[in-house]
Parts: sequence; structure tokens; C-alpha cells
Amino acid sequence: MGANKLQAEIDTYVLNTPLSAQLQEQAELYLPGGNSRGTGYFGPHPHFIESGKGPYVVDVDGNKSLDFMINATSLILGHASSEVAEVISDQAHKGTAFSGPTDAQIRLAKILTDRIPSMDTIRFTNSGTEGTMMAIRAARQFTGREKIVKMEGGYHGSHDYVSVSVYPSRDKLDSQKVTAIPEYSSQPSAIAEGVYVVEFNDIHGIEYALKNNAEQIACVIMEPIVSSIGYVPADIMFLEKIRALTEELGIVLIFDEVQSFRVAPGGAQELFGVIPDLTTLGKIIGGGTPVGAFGGRRDMMSAFDPTKGGLYLAHSGTFNANPITMRAGEVVMNALTTDVYDRMNDLGETLRQKLRAMFAEMGVPATVTGVASLFGIHFSCNEVKNYRDAISADGQMTRAFFLGMLNEGILLMAGAAGALNVLSTEEHVDNLVEAASRVVQRIR
Amino acid sequence: MGANKLQAEIDTYVLNTPLSAQLQEQAELYLPGGNSRGTGYFGPHPHFIESGKGPYVVDVDGNKSLDFMINATSLILGHASSEVAEVISDQAHKGTAFSGPTDAQIRLAKILTDRIPSMDTIRFTNSGTEGTMMAIRAARQFTGREKIVKMEGGYHGSHDYVSVSVYPSRDKLDSQKVTAIPEYSSQPSAIAEGVYVVEFNDIHGIEYALKNNAEQIACVIMEPIVSSIGYVPADIMFLEKIRALTEELGIVLIFDEVQSFRVAPGGAQELFGVIPDLTTLGKIIGGGTPVGAFGGRRDMMSAFDPTKGGLYLAHSGTFNANPITMRAGEVVMNALTTDVYDRMNDLGETLRQKLRAMFAEMGVPATVTGVASLFGIHFSCNEVKNYRDAISADGQMTRAFFLGMLNEGILLMAGAAGALNVLSTEEHVDNLVEAASRVVQRIR
Repeated sequence: MGANKLQAEIDTYVLNTPLSAQLQEQAELYLPGGNSRGTGYFGPHPHFIESGKGPYVVDVDGNKSLDFMINATSLILGHASSEVAEVISDQAHKGTAFSGPTDAQIRLAKILTDRIPSMDTIRFTNSGTEGTMMAIRAARQFTGREKIVKMEGGYHGSHDYVSVSVYPSRDKLDSQKVTAIPEYSSQPSAIAEGVYVVEFNDIHGIEYALKNNAEQIACVIMEPIVSSIGYVPADIMFLEKIRALTEELGIVLIFDEVQSFRVAPGGAQELFGVIPDLTTLGKIIGGGTPVGAFGGRRDMMSAFDPTKGGLYLAHSGTFNANPITMRAGEVVMNALTTDVYDRMNDLGETLRQKLRAMFAEMGVPATVTGVASLFGIHFSCNEVKNYRDAISADGQMTRAFFLGMLNEGILLMAGAAGALNVLSTEEHVDNLVEAASRVVQRIR
Repeated sequence: MGANKLQAEIDTYVLNTPLSAQLQEQAELYLPGGNSRGTGYFGPHPHFIESGKGPYVVDVDGNKSLDFMINATSLILGHASSEVAEVISDQAHKGTAFSGPTDAQIRLAKILTDRIPSMDTIRFTNSGTEGTMMAIRAARQFTGREKIVKMEGGYHGSHDYVSVSVYPSRDKLDSQKVTAIPEYSSQPSAIAEGVYVVEFNDIHGIEYALKNNAEQIACVIMEPIVSSIGYVPADIMFLEKIRALTEELGIVLIFDEVQSFRVAPGGAQELFGVIPDLTTLGKIIGGGTPVGAFGGRRDMMSAFDPTKGGLYLAHSGTFNANPITMRAGEVVMNALTTDVYDRMNDLGETLRQKLRAMFAEMGVPATVTGVASLFGIHFSCNEVKNYRDAISADGQMTRAFFLGMLNEGILLMAGAAGALNVLSTEEHVDNLVEAASRVVQRIR
């Protein structure tokens, strides 16, 4: 792909977004990079959002996009669901947050623990980051061991012990083996030393890591469907091997289902039939408001019970389980019936197939990954099974594609991945595929 | 105090809260301890909240309390402020959260960076925990050093590097010196080894720690007013010494103003005239919705600017700076004029004086701490300047007092501390003091 083709997409985007450009300039006065989210930024400037409704989002320049980003998969009912807005409004007039608990927390906890196979009990947090942090703490407390195992390229939030080998640049990777690479240069060296990193879907790698270090390992934390590399699912044999090994070796298995929970009523663990000890949640369970959670085996979770004494783990948070979030989450969960999952997941399969057919027809080297309502597009002929496969795709093409799609009124994640929502239709899928075809025609 | 007097308060509380007792039983089926917050629990069972309005909160049994807890100081406009509820409702109908930034973030960032002396730029998070975590990361990146210094008894959220010497039990304290004590038994040993702990208000202690380890120390993180021990302010000389030493030794000074920001338009740093390098925020700045933030010197914060390259620090978060939180926070900040602060802070001084006079008149050994709109009550004759002073107070008396006050319709924090809000009146203050007098009469 020529640089001039990327530039043409940038030029169109700049022409379409003068007010966003102005706001970015203002924002940079008060916020480094003009933003509070790494993923909220893309060059030459992000589009500033005015409002959203259903599957659409409108930016400050009036550009309307069909949104497959839906705030990092979290808005599974689409933007500004009337039912969600009503309970948020009602609760805001009754009080946003209290020092004491509410029955709304009990209701959402019951729904989630009923649905998720591994989850006897649950605790809510304000983010997925806080959820994975506390799940790891529970695993350490239960096992009395310190170290953790994670997958290369796995993102589990922004706390230190998971800020290892998340997006390592190509020049830092050892081509002969997988190593633990600090995500930032000033990270205390003890962090990466406390983490074993394994290649996703590498059965021998995980077996070697677990068997040789079992006495030290508190937990394996992993996404059953890896988000950052285009929603690549684990091979079932890989998952089953990990489950068998962790059981045998007394290691806690944590599934990070912050994103993958949306694939089935009981999450990816239900879809794949492999049940972890602890599960972390976020995104959809708060109805579009800040949320996270972790839960699992009652004996592991009881460390957080203040009435039990002994090895008690403190866990506070001013806004944990606030009633706005609990009630918004409850609306979402009640809307997600089995039929809704089936329809959304079938449509996801249709989308992936139509994308593959279109790329094949156009002779564009592309691989489409994903499961259920999640999809990822890679400009590469190779199968994508892990992080190294994913970063071998054509990055400049991806960037041009993302901007080109936005110029066509289709909002994807910057990595050319996305998610459907319950309002998605076959027409939306066709819109996406046709736009992709036009964009690829321009930038190939 | 006899145990039978505590039991009498418990009996009254149990009699008043049968529905809360039932809900707690249900909640324990799905949540360890029935809750997602350590501070949300107290024995024999917490009261479950039905709703709040202004300075009052009503539990599920219909008990109405004058609320001085106001969700850990966060609800500075009182419960369910109509103005806040209106913007939350409006925004919920326009979309709760988007992948792109909004102008609401710019507006709140401008207000906060304008008001807070140390703050050139800011980034928003979902909690104070995330704010202190990222501030420490910024300090490590800026200095290239790893270790941190904190105060004994200082709470800065739930991530690992601040989960050291937060609430160490008496039997773990070395009476001869201050040491770094892991908050939970299975914490990796590298964590406490990476933290120097100093006694609050101990000028020689901080000087010794900083001068002897300067080359290793990235930052000092501290509250200028320590929340967990009853809002005890730093001596000005202590603050000035720390500021001078950190400047001299190239150490980043972080003020955790998650709670103390409420004492003045520019926070405690403005009130005390000592300006840190970085500041963390939370509580009031989100209008009662989940929020946190960190900010400070432009050169330190620029590590988060994705356009700068170099030593970039990734910082993501699906709900960071979501427009509901930004707009709710904006309403709060605009309501907090200088006059409002003056009135609220004067009333705080009145409250502390009336409490002291009442305790003196009754001959009850008690010390009242606090600054501005914050107060703490200690059943002890000793001055309270640090954590060890605070835990020397009569814990059983504190527990009976907290429950007794709740039986009188006054909600405090479980540690017998609290905060005023903008709707607080001299009548509310008198209600509190008179209730305290009746309770002390019963339990002394």
C-alpha cells in the first residue's frame, strides 16, 4: 500500500472533522494527548462525540457513524437505550451512591452468579482493571503463592502485574522464545520477574511453564477469547489442557471475561465448556456505566468476607456496586435472553463469512477472526492464533482501513475489530461489508 | 465501657432494622460478606439504603438518618441533587459512554486545572485507586526510580504498592520503629520491600528516609489531611520540610487529595500553601458517580501523551471520562463557589468546637480532629497526630458510639468521622452534638 493512499484517507477525515480538530487542540491544553484513554486517541485527531442512539453515533461535526466499536464492546443494547436511560434517571433522583448496600446489588449479583457456571459469589468494582487486580489477589491468598502466568499479548487492565507483555514491540520480542517484557521502562523489575508469559494456544509452552514452576504459581489469568488480537478464541484443547494442569497443580485458573462474557449467557466458559475457578467481568454488566467485577468459587471468594476473620482481604471502593450501575446492568442482563444471543451470534457468523467472501473475491490478503458477536480483520494471509501472528499483519493498511471505514460512516476499533449489538441487523452487516469493499478498493 | 452497653445499642439497632437483616442474609448468598465494599459492612448487619435526598438517607426499614458519611465524603451537594440528577438523566438519553472523547471532559478538566495550583494537566480514571496507581507510575517514569514513600496508616486505594502499612494491627507494629507491613499475608514480598513507611508528622523520620534512600525513591505519596485517622492535618512544618527535601533530592511529591480536595477550591494544597508535583482526585469531582483523576506538572504528565513518542505510558479505561461523570462533576464544581466553601468550613469549625465543649462538659475523654468540613472523634485524651495515636483510642467505645448515633438518626463513618455538605446547617450540627451527648450518656 502506498503512503499516499493512507494520506488520502487522512485528508478526507480532516476535511470531515474541523470541529473535532478544534476540540482536540483545546483538550491538549488541559489533558496530555487531549484525552484520558489511550484507546480514545487516533491520529490526526480523534472525532469528538456529540451523542449516540441505538447503533449510531454522531460526532460534533455532524458525521453519523454505524458504531461497531460501541465503547469497546460494552454497549450491547446500543447507545442510549431508553430502558437503561430510564432507570439511570430514576436512580439519579433517588441518590447516585450510598455508604450502605442496596437490594439492586443483590439482584444483579443473583443474575450473574446464576448465569455464569464458575461463579458462586461475586464482588463489584469500578472497572475491569480493578476486577482482575482483586481476582489475582484472591488467587494469591488462596494458594499462598506469588507468581502469575499470562499470555503474550493479553490485556487485563492497567495494574502492574498484568502490565507485562501486553503490546511488546517487534524489536523487543525474542524470536526463539517468549519472555516477560515490562510494558513501560520504569516498571519495578520485581513485576516482570513475578510473571511467566506463554504464547496463546501453545500447549507445550503452557505445560512447560506450569510444570516447572508449579510451587510458585498462584494463578493463570487469560482471556478465553483474546480481545487485543482480534477476538481470537482459544483452541478447546488448549483450554482443556490448562484446566487439567491447573487442577492437578493446585493453580487457580482465572478467565478474564470482561469482553468475552457477551458471547453467551454464561460467557465463553459456557460456550467452550471449560470452567475456571475465578472469572472477571466488566463492559456490558454495567449498562454503559463504569463497572467491573470478579467472582468464582465460594471458598476462594470468602477471603473478602469480613465476618470470617482469618486471612481477610480488604476490598473497598467508594463507588463499587453503586445503584445506578447495578440497575443499568440489571436492565441489560434481563434484555439478553437466549434468543437474543442466538440471533446476535448468528449475525456475527454471517458478518465474518461475508467479509471473508468479499476479501477473497477482491483478492485482498485478509484473515477474519472472531467468535459469536465479535470480529477482527487482519491484512495478512496467515492464520491468526496468537500475538505474533496478529502483529505480522500490515499495520499501515489497518490504519488506512480504520480511517477509510470512518470516512464511510462505519466506526470500528482502531485495530479493525468490532462487535455487534442487539439492534444490529443484516442490513448493518451488509453496510459494513460494502463499505469495507469500497475502502479496500481505494487503499489496496 | 461495659460490653452490655454496646450490646444495648446493638439490640436497638437490630430491632430497628429487620428488613436490612433479611437483605443481608440474601446478599450473603451471592456476595462474600453480602457486599462489594469493606467500608459498607458493619456488624451485626449494615443498613440497606432505599434512597437519599439532600442531607438525609432512608433505609429499607424506613429509618431516616441525617447523613454525615455522604458516601465517604463524596456527596458534597447532598444526596440526589436535582441539578446533578438532571444532567445525568439528560446524558443517559444522549449516550452514557462513547469510544471518542467529549467536550464535557474538556470543561471539567479546565475547571480542575484552573483551580488546583499544582495541576497543569489532568487525566480521569474510574476511581481514586486508579488515580494513585497512575500517579505513582508517572513518578517512576519521570525519575527512573522504583521505590515509594508513604505514611503509616495512609490509605491510597487498593492496588498493591499502596497496600502496605494501611491498617496494621497493633501486634504487628514495632514499638521502636516504623516498618513496611504488608496489608495481606500473601502479598508478594517485593511490594513491601519497595516501600518506605514513615510516621505522619515525623519530620526526622521523613528526613532520614528520604536522605538515606534518595537515589532509589521515585515519589512520596501522602494525604495532606489523613482520612483514615479522623482527618488529621499535616503540620505545616512537616509539609514544608517534605516539599523542600523532595525538591532537593529530585523526588516527586504526590498529594492524594481524593478526600481533602473538598477543603478549598484548590484543595488542601491551596489551604496549606504547599504545592506538590502531582495530585490525585476522586469523590466529589464526579458528582456522585464513579470517578478518579490524577494530574500535575505538564512535563510529568506528558508521558501519557500518545503523540509525544519516547517514554510513553499506556493508560486506557473503557469508562474513563465518560460524559455522565464529567457533566455531573461539572455541576458540582460550579456549585462550589468561594462563599460556599467559607460557609461549610466555618460550620465545620463550629461543629468541632461544640463537640469539644460537649465532651468537656460531660467529662468524657475525647479528642476531636478535622479541618474545614471534615471531622473525626477519638475516645482518648491524647492528641492525635498520627496512626499510632489514633489506634490508641477506645475501639469498643467507638463502635458503640457509631451504632448509638445511627440509633439516634445520625449516620457517621464507622470510625466516628464524617463530613458536612453544602446543605448542612447549624441545626444539623446541633442535632449531631445533642445526639452525641445522649449516646455518650448511655454508653460511657
